[in-house]
Amino acid sequence: MSSNNFKPLRNKVVDKAKEDILELGQELFHPGFSVDCVIFGFHENQLKVLLLKMKHIDIWALPGGFVLKEEDVEDAATRVLQSRTGLDNIFLRQFHLFGQPGRSKHDFNAELLKKRQVPFDGSHWFLQRFMTLGFYALVEYSSATPRPDNNSDACEWWDLQQVPALMQDHNQILDKALEALRLQLAYQPIGYNLLAEKFTMPELQKLYETILGKQLDRRNFQRKMLTYDILERLDERRSGVAHKAPYLYRFNQEKYQQALQQGLQGGW
Amino acid sequence: MSSNNFKPLRNKVVDKAKEDILELGQELFHPGFSVDCVIFGFHENQLKVLLLKMKHIDIWALPGGFVLKEEDVEDAATRVLQSRTGLDNIFLRQFHLFGQPGRSKHDFNAELLKKRQVPFDGSHWFLQRFMTLGFYALVEYSSATPRPDNNSDACEWWDLQQVPALMQDHNQILDKALEALRLQLAYQPIGYNLLAEKFTMPELQKLYETILGKQLDRRNFQRKMLTYDILERLDERRSGVAHKAPYLYRFNQEKYQQALQQGLQGGW
Repeated sequence: MSSNNFKPLRNKVVDKAKEDILELGQELFHPGFSVDCVIFGFHENQLKVLLLKMKHIDIWALPGGFVLKEEDVEDAATRVLQSRTGLDNIFLRQFHLFGQPGRSKHDFNAELLKKRQVPFDGSHWFLQRFMTLGFYALVEYSSATPRPDNNSDACEWWDLQQVPALMQDHNQILDKALEALRLQLAYQPIGYNLLAEKFTMPELQKLYETILGKQLDRRNFQRKMLTYDILERLDERRSGVAHKAPYLYRFNQEKYQQALQQGLQGGW
Repeated sequence: MSSNNFKPLRNKVVDKAKEDILELGQELFHPGFSVDCVIFGFHENQLKVLLLKMKHIDIWALPGGFVLKEEDVEDAATRVLQSRTGLDNIFLRQFHLFGQPGRSKHDFNAELLKKRQVPFDGSHWFLQRFMTLGFYALVEYSSATPRPDNNSDACEWWDLQQVPALMQDHNQILDKALEALRLQLAYQPIGYNLLAEKFTMPELQKLYETILGKQLDRRNFQRKMLTYDILERLDERRSGVAHKAPYLYRFNQEKYQQALQQGLQGGW
């Protein structure tokens, strides 16, 4: 992220936010392009996703927005997420560009402009075709309290199994993000910021099982995880457990960061 | 890919190609957006990349182009690659959107317009900020004969180690594509269409070593590859070799395709 020019851009958009961005979009934003954020929350062994309920149209959607004309796309996703949900310091990862011509619904957007009482004709920027870049992140959700912005009635965590029909193609974007998150488990470490500093192997396995949506063999999981060489086993065991209390582990920060950059040893 | 509306779009752009797209871009293309293709060629254990030498500016670049207003982005990449290099039936995979505001060089593009004798003012579409979506593919290069289009003087395979300074940020796009290709080895099978139908384990290992740019342990490679369960060992050995001729293998198509979809068993 080029965070050097990040703050001024945010200030600029905060000023503009006093007015309606749908009216100013032509002047403000890169044309025909948006970003959408899939924020997975991990809490008590449950995988959840953060959704906004849109004002006026009463439908749930992923937090999304537009890219300022001089803004880095990665910075835009962070800004959009922060301004729409109040969540900050989340590492977002782009995973797919959705570029089918049919994905922007002209009539749907025209309806929204009417309800927002924005004057427009057929050439209005908001009615053009939009490509959207999908970003995802996995966060320990209790660490962040989402709040809706002034275009939303609600900002809530939903169980993945209970997600309703979302705006436009947002269900497909969500599915694709989950796919990307699962693939990530195959070549990069995960878990830092999601687990306590010290955790047991069964707790780490539960995180993987929750994301993958399937049970894993205990022995294979431990063997594989240890070959990745990102864990330090401590000379402590989880207390308050019956006999055979499991050992506690923590991530070796240096090796964890290295594996994020270069992929897991377990790869090749 | 939505190949249903693919052919008509290609015909349309072929008609337009008679005129200069730089003049018609405003009307033809999605604004501020391009695609660039990194085509890796594998041949005789060498990894190469396909580059075009641009007319008028005498500089090498990745094959790239623009997305028609009603065209699917994935189709656009395939069309661009086909029309610029003559290469067809290549499975392209999008890997990253390059969206830094500084990546489009206004002066460079203005110079190009002058040299192409395109009338323009400061609002010309080609002078605006462009985001570009990077695609990559890995092909057996002897199976395809690239030919330059009418905007290029040459279309050639370059050894990865010898790639010159490329147009704009194309060297960074190439580096990022190589990174993506290497990560892909960690979670998806590779090799079909790159190796003969029947191959030995050492030949498959050589492909991996070439892409990763490092030596791999023979025993570990074989063990890991077999746990992926995508190979069939044949009752034949490579003939014309001294004693201990290696067994021949081939990919099990069904399992190979499944692994492409769901990731390798070796993952989790």
